[in-house]
Amino acid sequence: MSADHFTLIHRDTSCGARLGSLKTAHGMIETPIFMPVGTNATVKAMTPEDLLAINAQIILANTYHLYLRPGHKLVKKLGGLHNFMNWQRPMLTDSGGFQVFSLGDLRKISEHGVKFQSHLDGSYHVLTPELAIEIQEDLGADIIMCFDECPPATADYNYVVRSLEMTTRWARRCKDAHTRQDQLLFGIIQGGMHHDLRARSLADICSIGFDGYALGGLSVGETKEQMYGVMEACASMMPKDKPRYIMGIGAPEDLVEAVWHGYDMFDCVMPTRNARNGMLFTSQGRINIKAKIYEEDERPLDPECGCHVCRTYSRAYLRHLYRSGEILASNLNTYHNLYFYLDLMRRIRESILENSFTAFRHSFFEKSVYNQKN
Amino acid sequence: MSADHFTLIHRDTSCGARLGSLKTAHGMIETPIFMPVGTNATVKAMTPEDLLAINAQIILANTYHLYLRPGHKLVKKLGGLHNFMNWQRPMLTDSGGFQVFSLGDLRKISEHGVKFQSHLDGSYHVLTPELAIEIQEDLGADIIMCFDECPPATADYNYVVRSLEMTTRWARRCKDAHTRQDQLLFGIIQGGMHHDLRARSLADICSIGFDGYALGGLSVGETKEQMYGVMEACASMMPKDKPRYIMGIGAPEDLVEAVWHGYDMFDCVMPTRNARNGMLFTSQGRINIKAKIYEEDERPLDPECGCHVCRTYSRAYLRHLYRSGEILASNLNTYHNLYFYLDLMRRIRESILENSFTAFRHSFFEKSVYNQKN
Repeated sequence: MSADHFTLIHRDTSCGARLGSLKTAHGMIETPIFMPVGTNATVKAMTPEDLLAINAQIILANTYHLYLRPGHKLVKKLGGLHNFMNWQRPMLTDSGGFQVFSLGDLRKISEHGVKFQSHLDGSYHVLTPELAIEIQEDLGADIIMCFDECPPATADYNYVVRSLEMTTRWARRCKDAHTRQDQLLFGIIQGGMHHDLRARSLADICSIGFDGYALGGLSVGETKEQMYGVMEACASMMPKDKPRYIMGIGAPEDLVEAVWHGYDMFDCVMPTRNARNGMLFTSQGRINIKAKIYEEDERPLDPECGCHVCRTYSRAYLRHLYRSGEILASNLNTYHNLYFYLDLMRRIRESILENSFTAFRHSFFEKSVYNQKN
Repeated sequence: MSADHFTLIHRDTSCGARLGSLKTAHGMIETPIFMPVGTNATVKAMTPEDLLAINAQIILANTYHLYLRPGHKLVKKLGGLHNFMNWQRPMLTDSGGFQVFSLGDLRKISEHGVKFQSHLDGSYHVLTPELAIEIQEDLGADIIMCFDECPPATADYNYVVRSLEMTTRWARRCKDAHTRQDQLLFGIIQGGMHHDLRARSLADICSIGFDGYALGGLSVGETKEQMYGVMEACASMMPKDKPRYIMGIGAPEDLVEAVWHGYDMFDCVMPTRNARNGMLFTSQGRINIKAKIYEEDERPLDPECGCHVCRTYSRAYLRHLYRSGEILASNLNTYHNLYFYLDLMRRIRESILENSFTAFRHSFFEKSVYNQKN
């Protein structure tokens, strides 16, 4: 891609929040943006038409899962991920690093790469930086990620030092292996919860040069204080002219906080996974739709929400579907939760353009039930 | 309803097949028709918008299930089943008879009604003809059914005699209890696999007088020969000026056979349940989408099908979704199977109008894989 794939449209005068536009092979996306997670080449319980209806601009899929099933060669043969799953807007794939390291005892790390056992059938595989790029080129997403090591929040200082150094060497190998000019390649910054190591990783990764930069190694068991600390520590050092992605977060309040510090892209399974468990996001806070108090509740899930579910169904019906184990419960709950997230990001973008995001954030934490202490 | 709710539009000159139009409080339906089953006030894995897209004219819901959860009083309070589930086209509810009798040891039958234990929590309930009507009036479907006893296919002659006599007395009680003039009330004919008893039940039920007549007591473990035998034996005796409904059938070949004998309405969980198990109906026969042979198959599920799923997705993708346990597999598979059924009925109606249904049936069984021996 050309160097000008990212355009900084506006910076909120009251804080670090930025409004941007990212050009990809499948169209533009507006930042800050939330990317619904479509692990297995489907955003769970959503059709592509649903995703268009809530105006999802970009979705994410998982290299680890698609490598194991159905296999990247098959996806390539069937025209790539976009054609395979009928999604013609932008897509991003992660590198598999986060998933592989989540396997715990099932994986062994070396400089070469990671040997691991499939969670599906126990078969052995080796994922290397070069293979992670090959898989992602075959899948054909618009934005792909470097293969990184993602240590747990509890990793000690010396481990994190060695780990981030290897992640840097792997990032270089990824860049060398990457051939598709129509894909943007993002680097991943590690360093655990240690701000000095984050700074070092950031400098190392940026010196290699990528189309965007991501904070990895969050949502790995750390406290909110630690997460917000890393966000803040890195924000001022992140290149201004490239998109900034925080991987794997988060709750609505995390997104508001991250945008305020100047981050642009986010993904998280929270809206989709929670929906399937009956936990729904509303302007009045989180609702557990299985609760008895909603048994006869004729009101929409969120009276202030404009989504199809809130305009159509009662809480009592949503509760009935959930209690009955109906598939439609997952469909409707997921639709609403993703709408809530995407609408939050839309309102965030609006307020940045009006230089009012600091007030938006203040109001969000003061008036709403989404305060940082929850 | 007025006596002219059913209009016989045309009778195929080559056989017993009829084309009709049934007026309900929520609009007209064309017969012969297939009614997708929405047990718990949702057709599993379908949104109301999906049902409109495949042109479902009427759907069915279950009295037994909705009585137990969420309860008919709640549904009434929330504006009836149509509003509760956001379906403004015609609906039919069964009486609960079939479900209660499926409970086996969990129920005890007397002249008064049936005492049974809930499959959900073991609580005790008594369902009577009067209560079955009260529940169905509260649910508010456009067509409701008499409460009947549904003996198993193996029931002996004397049992069936006593059973059908009680079903007749119950039918009278149902008619007496029914107050809502905007609902059509259908009688149910029993008699097991004994043609003489079917004739007797039919005469008894018709002498009471209902807005339509259903054959109950099929799909209870009988052979295809027995089922087709009962269909044929009853066909010539069924009133010509009223809709004729065979409850709980069936496979595509059963529908073709039943229409040929002059039946008008059908419901069955087969297309929806099989879809969730990966068994899909196509013009080339049944497909098990999990089979290895579809692993790299780029073709649509059914190249001759015009549905959204067949116009959009490959067999390889549908197989991937199914193997991955994705909710979208149930959504897409159900959409296709119901489209197949409704499209079959549409083509059946067309051929009746052209007096060519005997040829259609011949071709269906000769050329297609849906022959009676399968």
